[in-house]
Amino acid sequence: MSAEALTRAALDRIAAREAEIGAFAHLDPERALAEARAVDRLPARSPLHGVPIGVKDIFDTADLPTEYGSPIYKGHRPRADAALVALARAAGMVVIGKTVTTEFATRTPGKTRNPRGPSRTPGGSSSGSAAAVADGMVPLAFGTQTAGSVIRPAAYCGVVGFKPSFGLLPRAGMKQTADGLDTAGVFARSVAEAARFVGVLTNRSGLVDLPPLPSPRLAFCRTHQWPEAEPATVALFEGLDLPEIAAPPEHAGLAEAHETIYRYEIAGALAWEDATHHDLLSKRLADMIAAGRAIDGAAYDAARRAAETARAALPGFFGSYDAIVVPATPGEAPEGLASTGEPTFNRIWTLLGVPCVTVPAGCGPNGMPLGLQLVGRIGDDARLLAAAAAFEARLSRS
Amino acid sequence: MSAEALTRAALDRIAAREAEIGAFAHLDPERALAEARAVDRLPARSPLHGVPIGVKDIFDTADLPTEYGSPIYKGHRPRADAALVALARAAGMVVIGKTVTTEFATRTPGKTRNPRGPSRTPGGSSSGSAAAVADGMVPLAFGTQTAGSVIRPAAYCGVVGFKPSFGLLPRAGMKQTADGLDTAGVFARSVAEAARFVGVLTNRSGLVDLPPLPSPRLAFCRTHQWPEAEPATVALFEGLDLPEIAAPPEHAGLAEAHETIYRYEIAGALAWEDATHHDLLSKRLADMIAAGRAIDGAAYDAARRAAETARAALPGFFGSYDAIVVPATPGEAPEGLASTGEPTFNRIWTLLGVPCVTVPAGCGPNGMPLGLQLVGRIGDDARLLAAAAAFEARLSRS
Repeated sequence: MSAEALTRAALDRIAAREAEIGAFAHLDPERALAEARAVDRLPARSPLHGVPIGVKDIFDTADLPTEYGSPIYKGHRPRADAALVALARAAGMVVIGKTVTTEFATRTPGKTRNPRGPSRTPGGSSSGSAAAVADGMVPLAFGTQTAGSVIRPAAYCGVVGFKPSFGLLPRAGMKQTADGLDTAGVFARSVAEAARFVGVLTNRSGLVDLPPLPSPRLAFCRTHQWPEAEPATVALFEGLDLPEIAAPPEHAGLAEAHETIYRYEIAGALAWEDATHHDLLSKRLADMIAAGRAIDGAAYDAARRAAETARAALPGFFGSYDAIVVPATPGEAPEGLASTGEPTFNRIWTLLGVPCVTVPAGCGPNGMPLGLQLVGRIGDDARLLAAAAAFEARLSRS
Repeated sequence: MSAEALTRAALDRIAAREAEIGAFAHLDPERALAEARAVDRLPARSPLHGVPIGVKDIFDTADLPTEYGSPIYKGHRPRADAALVALARAAGMVVIGKTVTTEFATRTPGKTRNPRGPSRTPGGSSSGSAAAVADGMVPLAFGTQTAGSVIRPAAYCGVVGFKPSFGLLPRAGMKQTADGLDTAGVFARSVAEAARFVGVLTNRSGLVDLPPLPSPRLAFCRTHQWPEAEPATVALFEGLDLPEIAAPPEHAGLAEAHETIYRYEIAGALAWEDATHHDLLSKRLADMIAAGRAIDGAAYDAARRAAETARAALPGFFGSYDAIVVPATPGEAPEGLASTGEPTFNRIWTLLGVPCVTVPAGCGPNGMPLGLQLVGRIGDDARLLAAAAAFEARLSRS
């Protein structure tokens, strides 16, 4: 199919559903069609030539507004595309529009509803990208994760979310909130499609065509956050026919270390916004920045050292397993749009920088999707994804 | 002294010398004076309240053009200040102007001359910041280092350059070229002033007032790059009354690993510039991007793993020493302005993420400054700087 036909199909779906879902922050159908027609005039540049994508409105785009989910940036039009946007376009993909982000990818929600239950949050901060893929508006979308902003919305919306190893996807032109945590990621309808998307963008043939790993060695770990798991998640894990490994002691303080690093770093990253447009920040974010400003550099350094120590011990955590299965979220997407849910089961993996992928794993008591998260070794995203693809196939058979 | 008086003094020096030195890319004296007067109306916000600073034109400023040393960004005016600029202003410092950077902080020079010998390069990429501090235009300035862009120009110009541990200074709003390497740093006239500058910006009392370390344990290392040292540098090391340690074997491939990572990452970071404004890139940079695009993700991953292995072995390298003394540059600043010299002795430390500081160490056969570089443990910038301050005092006595 031509890029134009794929783009028209995406725009048709959006036209039918956007009023209910609210996945897009900025949409210009004529511009998207023009981009698609230009792509159709080129020879195929990648296996994803002509594929329409959604771009979280935390990535700069030169030809679409970029507001980072904040009124401070109302009407902002960056000079350049973010690296990932430019690389996607160089590979022949078509940017359909900018998807809704929470305020600077933090906790204050946008307008998006969960396509699987519109009275519920889609999760955040990559709310629009998760919802757009879940609703069939686009097959692929970009997100970012600083706490749980890819894995959580993917699980809540019933799609695949992939947060690669820290540093695998380029971050130039992505609005920075916490340099040591911000990680670009993707949404897709299958593990193989997520892998291919990342493989095309980063010149990794081993991801473009994921080799099969028919019998992945998997274990599950309840993690130190297990008391936060809701009954639906507990039931999901009781049904797993996998060996269990204990949560390592050095993971115990990582959720707090993550919070210290996030606050300290966001106070620096948004120092201009706080100094010049304080009144346009949500109270929640203004409080977070104030808390970050009060953190001494030595406390921040100690949190980073705790993460480094746990990172050095990861070989022992993984042992001989290809991936470890952990909860993706406490449970189903909560009712209401005032909160995007909790990143309880995501923070420590983001801090560690390990690759994470969530695969749909049935539904909870309210008929809302649940996900299971697989975590892998830093830099071995291919092995994690191959294991996740096999696990996905197993779940779809059960 | 008032901020206005300090700013006037800086502007007077610039007016007298800028035609010869060419340190500034953008200068608006009236704007700087207005900023200074506004600062004078505030209560003192930090020990550096009222101090004028130079800002490398790789950092975004909302009230001054930001061109990244490239015609692609002619007249560009970002929406926001970079984090470091906002933090400096929040601490009461006054931005005098934007200092010259090479093209996207790479190798293609700007107009700046070395104040210690105007027929010679000041080094790069932070050419203007090093020259402005060396010439007494400003006491402090921001730079960045991706290969050798702080340490090299500081040594060539005879000032202190400090590249903190990777991640210590926030990078939001700093034009990204290589996410895993780009490091913000500072120029000052003494180690104590460099430490105070960074301490104020990052809420680190241990740097604001650097505790004395009267007898630092120092060793020197010729490094695997020693064959590139010129006679002046060789003579400098023969005069050091310090124990010598060998260059670790795991450092042998790091210069190549650095180059692989730099090329691969810049091809992503500047993908938009390359796709839309290829003809406005220098041939040198266009070639570098093309080379980076040809690098397979697996080769990039291998280079990152080599760095990680060497990082893990750093405790053995440092042993019981507080810091290791290594060359800062091959020799004196080369004649001519067509090249900014070589980052030979800087690349591997940037890749490792260790903090580095160069202190002036006399002159070479042409009367141009030489520097000695001290490297320290990741995250222990305070110890490195205390050792460097003691070493600086010793050099000034000799």
